[in-house]
Amino acid sequence: MTNPSAVIYLDHAATTPVKPAALQAAWPWLTSEFGNPSSTHEFGSRAAAALEDARKKVAAFFGVRASEITFTSGGTESDNLAIVGLALANPRGKHIVSARTEHEAVLASIDYLVRVHGFEVTWAELDEFGQVQNLADCLRPETTLVSLMTSNNETGTVHPIAELAKLTHENGALFHTDAVQAVGWQELNVPELGVDALSVSGHKFGAPKGSGVLVLRAGKHVEPLIHGGGQESGLRSGTENVAWAVAIANALDELRETNADLKAAAMMRDEFITEVLSTVPNAKLTGHPVNRQANIASFTLQGVSGEAVLLELERRGIIVSSGSACAAGSDEPSHVLVALGIQAEVAQTAVRFSFAHDTTREDLHAAAKALAEAVSVFI
Amino acid sequence: MTNPSAVIYLDHAATTPVKPAALQAAWPWLTSEFGNPSSTHEFGSRAAAALEDARKKVAAFFGVRASEITFTSGGTESDNLAIVGLALANPRGKHIVSARTEHEAVLASIDYLVRVHGFEVTWAELDEFGQVQNLADCLRPETTLVSLMTSNNETGTVHPIAELAKLTHENGALFHTDAVQAVGWQELNVPELGVDALSVSGHKFGAPKGSGVLVLRAGKHVEPLIHGGGQESGLRSGTENVAWAVAIANALDELRETNADLKAAAMMRDEFITEVLSTVPNAKLTGHPVNRQANIASFTLQGVSGEAVLLELERRGIIVSSGSACAAGSDEPSHVLVALGIQAEVAQTAVRFSFAHDTTREDLHAAAKALAEAVSVFI
Repeated sequence: MTNPSAVIYLDHAATTPVKPAALQAAWPWLTSEFGNPSSTHEFGSRAAAALEDARKKVAAFFGVRASEITFTSGGTESDNLAIVGLALANPRGKHIVSARTEHEAVLASIDYLVRVHGFEVTWAELDEFGQVQNLADCLRPETTLVSLMTSNNETGTVHPIAELAKLTHENGALFHTDAVQAVGWQELNVPELGVDALSVSGHKFGAPKGSGVLVLRAGKHVEPLIHGGGQESGLRSGTENVAWAVAIANALDELRETNADLKAAAMMRDEFITEVLSTVPNAKLTGHPVNRQANIASFTLQGVSGEAVLLELERRGIIVSSGSACAAGSDEPSHVLVALGIQAEVAQTAVRFSFAHDTTREDLHAAAKALAEAVSVFI
Repeated sequence: MTNPSAVIYLDHAATTPVKPAALQAAWPWLTSEFGNPSSTHEFGSRAAAALEDARKKVAAFFGVRASEITFTSGGTESDNLAIVGLALANPRGKHIVSARTEHEAVLASIDYLVRVHGFEVTWAELDEFGQVQNLADCLRPETTLVSLMTSNNETGTVHPIAELAKLTHENGALFHTDAVQAVGWQELNVPELGVDALSVSGHKFGAPKGSGVLVLRAGKHVEPLIHGGGQESGLRSGTENVAWAVAIANALDELRETNADLKAAAMMRDEFITEVLSTVPNAKLTGHPVNRQANIASFTLQGVSGEAVLLELERRGIIVSSGSACAAGSDEPSHVLVALGIQAEVAQTAVRFSFAHDTTREDLHAAAKALAEAVSVFI
């Protein structure tokens, strides 16, 4: 077992450490301040106040009102609540538009609507970088919802969300975006994006696993996923996880400062990409060359086994992944890369590097060097 | 604001403090060991191992196999997953049997099945203590599911679950029990109870808010609530909250020792009930006089305002509630007490005392004394 302090962890898109300040802010709500926010006595009142304070902070980050923030248990729940919830509560018609590069949480929510509720889905056409080509052609009078991710978790490709949402609204449908990989790496002003719903996962930016948010614009109705005591304005029942709401608010507050560094981060990423492409003969970048987030660089390595390269990298202290952690256990090639037209056996060679805001130029140089060495073992 | 250390908190049925040992066990998984259990590298492997170790411990507590444990975000989610999930995946017929004293999470899950999926529900008849009278009469050839709680959260009344489950199975339907209030206060060997599914909420017994479990017996199928990457054997997608799984396993481990104290706790509760009934002239015990859990004693106080009494008690450092925290914010009388045939205006006078395993005889004497004083202010 490698000593964690000796390794360079570059799998932040899978999950990233909890920020100490976020955990510290949550601490009282895990210890002395243990009240149930629904209780009317003093313990309950203080917990309720902390929850509402957290809600205001999260709302400020996304440029919306506190009443537009619903705390959930994570990004997957937020995606399900948005997609299934909006589809069931807004029966304009049983037609949805999405893309095959979406996260499993989106794809499986849509599959549920198709299997159980008789919905039909149109998959938008994508170019080789993963950008949607023909949204206008996909929209029908009976389209209830379009769901397209803010940025892709495997390739880093960014969608022009404001434009796609505008087109969707002109056709009378609702627009949801899975922004799980975008928080902290793009400006996410929800009114400017113009989306109806936006999903967030805490553990991708320094809040703990089990924390999430759905931003749902005022006046938009969803059928809840989790029914019960009516917490979260009836949208998400169950005793509120006050501590993780406080943690997610705190982690978002910390991110405000990093927005300024995005240009520097993008430059560092580009240097890394250049170094990899010039030193690893078979490496090919996946995703869009320009419209991509600063924190993700993924390569296919035709001719070698991606899994074997990952092990060689891990032996050298570089912790990365082949792509989505959610499918990491399976032998299937990435559904994202296959959707981009990459052959299954090439898709299986993918290695994704994903960074944190404190990843350094030295870390990335070490990673590029290790990748070149690892690949040279096999070719 | 009262100093928390100076008060006697007797609202443990609403929520109870996190056990320090549970938080300590969770700590590494919130700090240095931050891996995503789905990642194949060393950080992921260690997180996955911790999750499976927690699963084995939880399974041992309930007498089942690890594969029968699904981690959720809480009791409400577990209830929804069991009820909606079993109903949708087992289309024997669209008929459900339950009782009007169930928790809101159960009632609202059933309401969803009725509203959206066309199910029909039969509410079992209850006696004045809340015990089911006519389950056999309620069962039909098309009954898919019976859901009856292990013990009631407002009155403490216990259902004879093994007997009710047996009768249900003889009629070919599935049986779910909401055991949220029973963990730690009853022996819960799931094979002996004979239920198909059992819901658990961590924050009722010293694990944090946001932790829960559904015990689902092998071979029983559910449609998931939260679809996505296929975590938790496909029953509950989303990156696993490893820390809270470890915490819930640890909190259950600690409870094993308290099972022996249940007789002593029941004696203490009976002394408390006797003291209240003999010193508070208008107090009347709710729920079953004998078949009740050791941790709950709730009284109606005809002729005085329950809310005013709660405030007087809080002024005296006794923190209690009128009943379910989930409905504490509303002006409606308790749906549980109304279902027992108690008049709405009497139900609104209810005051519930709920204990922890470390509640002392002195705490309860002080509470009884304060209640007598508080009531005397108004009569």
